[in-house]
Amino acid sequence: MRHPQAPDRYLMARSVAPALVTPDDIIEYDLDSNPCDAGGRGSFLERFIHGEIYRARPDIMSVVHSHSPSVIPFGLVGVPMQAMFHNAAFLAAGVPVFDIRGKFGATDLLVGNATKGVALAEAMGDRDVVLMRAHGAVACGPTLPSAVFRAVYTEVNARIQHWTLALGGGGPMAVLDAEEGRLADAINRTAGMRAWELWRSRVNW
Amino acid sequence: MRHPQAPDRYLMARSVAPALVTPDDIIEYDLDSNPCDAGGRGSFLERFIHGEIYRARPDIMSVVHSHSPSVIPFGLVGVPMQAMFHNAAFLAAGVPVFDIRGKFGATDLLVGNATKGVALAEAMGDRDVVLMRAHGAVACGPTLPSAVFRAVYTEVNARIQHWTLALGGGGPMAVLDAEEGRLADAINRTAGMRAWELWRSRVNW
Amino acid sequence: MRHPQAPDRYLMARSVAPALVTPDDIIEYDLDSNPCDAGGRGSFLERFIHGEIYRARPDIMSVVHSHSPSVIPFGLVGVPMQAMFHNAAFLAAGVPVFDIRGKFGATDLLVGNATKGVALAEAMGDRDVVLMRAHGAVACGPTLPSAVFRAVYTEVNARIQHWTLALGGGGPMAVLDAEEGRLADAINRTAGMRAWELWRSRVNW
Amino acid sequence: MRHPQAPDRYLMARSVAPALVTPDDIIEYDLDSNPCDAGGRGSFLERFIHGEIYRARPDIMSVVHSHSPSVIPFGLVGVPMQAMFHNAAFLAAGVPVFDIRGKFGATDLLVGNATKGVALAEAMGDRDVVLMRAHGAVACGPTLPSAVFRAVYTEVNARIQHWTLALGGGGPMAVLDAEEGRLADAINRTAGMRAWELWRSRVNW
Repeated sequence: MRHPQAPDRYLMARSVAPALVTPDDIIEYDLDSNPCDAGGRGSFLERFIHGEIYRARPDIMSVVHSHSPSVIPFGLVGVPMQAMFHNAAFLAAGVPVFDIRGKFGATDLLVGNATKGVALAEAMGDRDVVLMRAHGAVACGPTLPSAVFRAVYTEVNARIQHWTLALGGGGPMAVLDAEEGRLADAINRTAGMRAWELWRSRVNW
Repeated sequence: MRHPQAPDRYLMARSVAPALVTPDDIIEYDLDSNPCDAGGRGSFLERFIHGEIYRARPDIMSVVHSHSPSVIPFGLVGVPMQAMFHNAAFLAAGVPVFDIRGKFGATDLLVGNATKGVALAEAMGDRDVVLMRAHGAVACGPTLPSAVFRAVYTEVNARIQHWTLALGGGGPMAVLDAEEGRLADAINRTAGMRAWELWRSRVNW
Repeated sequence: MRHPQAPDRYLMARSVAPALVTPDDIIEYDLDSNPCDAGGRGSFLERFIHGEIYRARPDIMSVVHSHSPSVIPFGLVGVPMQAMFHNAAFLAAGVPVFDIRGKFGATDLLVGNATKGVALAEAMGDRDVVLMRAHGAVACGPTLPSAVFRAVYTEVNARIQHWTLALGGGGPMAVLDAEEGRLADAINRTAGMRAWELWRSRVNW
Repeated sequence: MRHPQAPDRYLMARSVAPALVTPDDIIEYDLDSNPCDAGGRGSFLERFIHGEIYRARPDIMSVVHSHSPSVIPFGLVGVPMQAMFHNAAFLAAGVPVFDIRGKFGATDLLVGNATKGVALAEAMGDRDVVLMRAHGAVACGPTLPSAVFRAVYTEVNARIQHWTLALGGGGPMAVLDAEEGRLADAINRTAGMRAWELWRSRVNW
């Protein structure tokens, strides 16, 4: 998340499996993604995803990067994600796909430097979710709980869309339109945060 | 559930993730969905789903509202849910879909007031399950265990129907007919309640 | 399972969710499915599945009845289950489907008396697995572990077959042929029983 | 894994469900897959998979054999696995399928002797993953963690590919090309090993 007192800093775990993170793993970074106080702890190679989005989007306070298997297919074929239910209202504004090949040719697929982070942030634009071809996705929000909420429901929405497309045979789907998306997203930012207490209760350290 | 002693009252948890509910979270409501004794505890915005169904349907003693990912597709395309196996016999009577756009235009999708609750209850009619377009479903029953049973097996049935449609290529499916549905539902209300003890044993508080 | 000392008796839990069974729940039945020593404990309505298979098939020492969601589709459309991998070799002999409507018309779908149990056993014939239309399946074996093994791998095989049919677009599938099925089933009855110790370790009472 | 001090030996558990393995279950084998010190402990029938790959491929230090349900379909129809995301970069070199029928006719499907192990190793060639028709797969690596990583992500990749093929309707998929595969695999061998600490933490004995 962005540092709550210093908007030009952000907090992120050292390179460790998320399920194993403890408070001692949190490193502070500047927006160039240089660690302020690493103290021997290793950084994620892809921290530039976070740094460049915080730089480009002052409204975003938290960024989640993930590799959900159900989401990845939408970055590999030309079928856009749509908002299948109210909890995924934040997707109704449209979900861009970032293909790292466009500017960088053949790579290891990782957003491993600032230039690649800038390109990703540009692909995301003013949306809150961006897919990364053959890699994963990024979900953002104005608070830590809202970014986690969006990461979770991007994954759930992907599963719903797979089944709905199969069920409907490619015909019309009564998904959220843009106005429904705006209205439902506003309410999700408050009432939808109910799940946060549950998710917090499952963190063990 | 409807209040066991006062049929014009119902009991429902405060706005909290269901997995976290404890007895202190239970609030009593009248059928206008006004809390009788909130004592500072926040109410679910969508409690009107419950209040208006209890008002419209005196035979219903319990209402479950959920957002199962496997169920939502059936509210988005024109493929009706059918009863794929005996445990889902209660679906053989037909499963209506409530589209909130019909009467209310673009909304946040939530059944957030009594008027919307009445419209949902009307869409459900004399059935025990209703799908909500781009949102979820409601399952009801004459007892608390039967409503939970129906919520669970609506979800299981949805998964079975997805796979059966894919397997059969859209050809005929030997689902329960209306008479089989009536006969199997009657027995499910007693013998089927075996699962209730298991589900209760998994609640932790 | 069949009683290890008295082949005209079988042992089965009282009507309780399988995850909750303890030794005190085990009831002894004769092959007419009358309890020998119920002592107030309630019997499963469908115990006739077990009694009539033990009567018809002296080689079978254990019977498992289940409602696996992935298996049920194969009883609803005309696509036969096939043996997709070595652990499901026992399916290579063919998997019949029992449709209770054939002899009994509209019912509650349950095998709730001896006549229905006989019809189910006849539909199974000399195979070890039979599907039940709109209901579930039965898996049998010459030992308790082998029957559990077959119930588990019938379910796994169903999932594999769903995905293989989708992947292959309905073209040919290199499934086990009958001879491979015989050879692999023989070895599964010994080496395959490795999983039994794991499954036993997960039973809690 | 290959013995860290003696490259002509390997270490493998006795025939027991993997979740139940403890240090006392580890047996040392020579490359003919004869146990050096069985001490009454039973060996896996298919240990020849391991012995013959260690013999044929000095670069491989660890071999994982599994039966993942999502992977098996790719061994049954003529659709090759492709690398759908960076974590499965090791698949971009191509994934051969070993059909035991080719050289051995109708069998029990098991790689139960050295001759069959040699044939499997030949089918794998210089790749790191090979599928086994109607059976499972083998994943290898230059270290124990990398082999486990590849076994896990072969399974995840299979699920992604199933959904991507369904989503794209058989049209083009923007999978990793060979150069992207090489670049991403190199980085996975170091940074990707983050998951190892998590997986280790889940082993209980």
